[in-house]
Amino acid sequence: MEHVPERIDLNEIANFRGPGEVPRVAEMAGRLVGSEILKIAAAIRELKASGADVCDLTVGDFDPAIFPIPAPLLAGVQEALAGGETNYPPSSGILELREAVQRFYERELGLAYPLASVLVAGGARPLIYGTYRTVVDPGDKVVYPVPSWNNNHYVTMLGADPVAVVCGPETRFLPEPEALIRELGGARLVCLNSPLNPTGTAITEDGLGTICEAILAENRAREGRGERPLYLLYDHIYWMLTFGETRHVTPPGLFPEMARYTIFIDGISKAFAATGLRVGWGVGPVDVMQRMNAVIGHVGAWAPRPEQKASARLLDDPAAIRSYHAVFKEGISTRLELLHRGIQGLKTDGLPVESIPPMGAIYLTAQIAPFGRKTPDGEVLRTNEEVRRYLLDRAAIGLVPFQAFGVPGDHGWFRLSVGAASIDAIEAALPRLRAALEALE
Amino acid sequence: MEHVPERIDLNEIANFRGPGEVPRVAEMAGRLVGSEILKIAAAIRELKASGADVCDLTVGDFDPAIFPIPAPLLAGVQEALAGGETNYPPSSGILELREAVQRFYERELGLAYPLASVLVAGGARPLIYGTYRTVVDPGDKVVYPVPSWNNNHYVTMLGADPVAVVCGPETRFLPEPEALIRELGGARLVCLNSPLNPTGTAITEDGLGTICEAILAENRAREGRGERPLYLLYDHIYWMLTFGETRHVTPPGLFPEMARYTIFIDGISKAFAATGLRVGWGVGPVDVMQRMNAVIGHVGAWAPRPEQKASARLLDDPAAIRSYHAVFKEGISTRLELLHRGIQGLKTDGLPVESIPPMGAIYLTAQIAPFGRKTPDGEVLRTNEEVRRYLLDRAAIGLVPFQAFGVPGDHGWFRLSVGAASIDAIEAALPRLRAALEALE
Repeated sequence: MEHVPERIDLNEIANFRGPGEVPRVAEMAGRLVGSEILKIAAAIRELKASGADVCDLTVGDFDPAIFPIPAPLLAGVQEALAGGETNYPPSSGILELREAVQRFYERELGLAYPLASVLVAGGARPLIYGTYRTVVDPGDKVVYPVPSWNNNHYVTMLGADPVAVVCGPETRFLPEPEALIRELGGARLVCLNSPLNPTGTAITEDGLGTICEAILAENRAREGRGERPLYLLYDHIYWMLTFGETRHVTPPGLFPEMARYTIFIDGISKAFAATGLRVGWGVGPVDVMQRMNAVIGHVGAWAPRPEQKASARLLDDPAAIRSYHAVFKEGISTRLELLHRGIQGLKTDGLPVESIPPMGAIYLTAQIAPFGRKTPDGEVLRTNEEVRRYLLDRAAIGLVPFQAFGVPGDHGWFRLSVGAASIDAIEAALPRLRAALEALE
Repeated sequence: MEHVPERIDLNEIANFRGPGEVPRVAEMAGRLVGSEILKIAAAIRELKASGADVCDLTVGDFDPAIFPIPAPLLAGVQEALAGGETNYPPSSGILELREAVQRFYERELGLAYPLASVLVAGGARPLIYGTYRTVVDPGDKVVYPVPSWNNNHYVTMLGADPVAVVCGPETRFLPEPEALIRELGGARLVCLNSPLNPTGTAITEDGLGTICEAILAENRAREGRGERPLYLLYDHIYWMLTFGETRHVTPPGLFPEMARYTIFIDGISKAFAATGLRVGWGVGPVDVMQRMNAVIGHVGAWAPRPEQKASARLLDDPAAIRSYHAVFKEGISTRLELLHRGIQGLKTDGLPVESIPPMGAIYLTAQIAPFGRKTPDGEVLRTNEEVRRYLLDRAAIGLVPFQAFGVPGDHGWFRLSVGAASIDAIEAALPRLRAALEALE
């Protein structure tokens, strides 16, 4: 590097966008769109950078100043680094962490899996992608309820045939089992998430049980016909974050036979406010997880080694987890309840709002539906997007409309995420929301 | 988590391997094979765990006790963690790191790219996969020389039409430009890597220049016909690790116009012995990198945030890089030269070996070709794999045959990787190699 190179200005050349109509990228990449949530969040980040005081309820993330990661996790990463844990982890994850996940699932969920069922990756997201890539062929039918997170993008990437089952407020936006079951014939994959991003609601034992019975019946029939099975992607990344009477349920916990068909998605990102440390794990049938290991290994979405070491230690420390969650879950549920009660108060006063009692995760589902009303600027509000922009401009509140989660139509439903909001910010935002709604004609 | 669940034993159920002949996974996942290198390395890891003293020259990795990461990188991660850098990074990478890469490329390579050309991911590997996914459609022709790393797996994953151009020792296993250029018509992507994994040899200015001229000519013709361009994936993850007179060259450094078609693959993994920290970056045409951002964003192969912060600081510190490399590169080249001289000594003494002078990376190319000779156990050695196993069993030396890098045929060529080998281990291994070869009849 002693050689000093001549400077070559590539600003214009590299900014090439192709000769007009000719596409420069592959067909799938050309159709794929980035995250709608991240787009909204990026716009709000810019607004805040310009000095605006926004109550940002958009991103499913945490403000580390409000919700730091567990102290033992932080210390664990630092110690692992100092101890030279800086080289490649095995592509399936370090043995220590895989064994810790195995013990964790047995201890906390009662699910005693073989070690070969556990696969570590760089966050939960690569494991969802890995599941799709491992079991779904182009043209295969994939069934998922909406609202849900990112299934629309994964079916695009796989060239799969999507069947989105639209859920409404009457079921707290969870799938009505019969509506989902109706679509399972010939499907390759069904995707469930509980507690659910974006709604903060959780599937019941009855609801999940009915769906599992249908999956088992379908697979018994297929086995007889020598056909490939139907799998259940069960994303329970928020399972440690349930509130009140809500109890998390799992498919193999209800029907052990479901372990043949269930792929769990999990990780430290949400349960320990550690979205930036990139450690996730999947747990599922050994044959599927071994193939997924090859897929994710070549994709290269590995978890960093020091973070893996530290995660293993944390999962083996139930006392540390309990004391962390005592504070963390209290902080999350307090914010969700505050928003819920605030919105119910506006509803009582006749404003066109609704909200669904929070059960888990870090989200509140709220309806803000002043459709047909006129803003002080004379704009008549007709769409979720118009309401979103009005509330951002007038009340400095950032929300994500349910369209970002695959729900069609403008019914005024929004996701409110509280991981990055202080109680003060929420308390200050509620009167602004009221004022903005009262300002409509 | 206060609820104590009943234990359900899933060891047998989850270990289900399907009813015999019926495949349980998708077609691509069924065909994909895991890394051959990692398989060999895992076997050696087990051998070492059982107490054997093996000189392990298999994995392209580092022993942190021999080659620790730069102290400022370690301190940077620890400070970022302590400073609460634990939440989501933007999907394209934190601005600080993208700007640092931009400055780094201008300062060290003379390449002044726009910021939008820089995309961060969780290591170099996801960026190679991302490049394939972004520009290659199923059935598209992909050209790459062999030996090379993992292109065979990526074409399988993409369902692409692979054209492997076989290179031999007469060109130090680098592509003879004319042989490569002959295949470029109708191709979508050509993949080059320099310094080259597995050979430790580096492309020359003349060789790269000739290939670039052909790519530019091909693309001028395509532009006239309104066709999608041919891209060059230029993996230069080892570019900071060149030795002696070897000078690293880049496509836009030779022909600025190549910035329209070149995607650089790079990161901290090899240059700073930081394979376990999972920070890589790609640099390329803005339109391609923006699409790749959507692809990698949904795949979720993001770099951990504290490691991104620390990498940004390191890239902006040329003095720290220089003083680290003074020691690190010396350590690598000493080992490579030691092996090279040792093998040349065996050759002088009439043993059937050869080696190619090391130019860069952490690899030596060696030929060990005692074919037709009989081991003390009476086995006649006929294949690279048989030689590999004989050397492991008899001389406790771990090598990777060139078949793992896509080279057909048994000609006795092997990759020797020195990142995890002490000088003592190499010095002790050379006489064992001699003895093993002399023991053959």
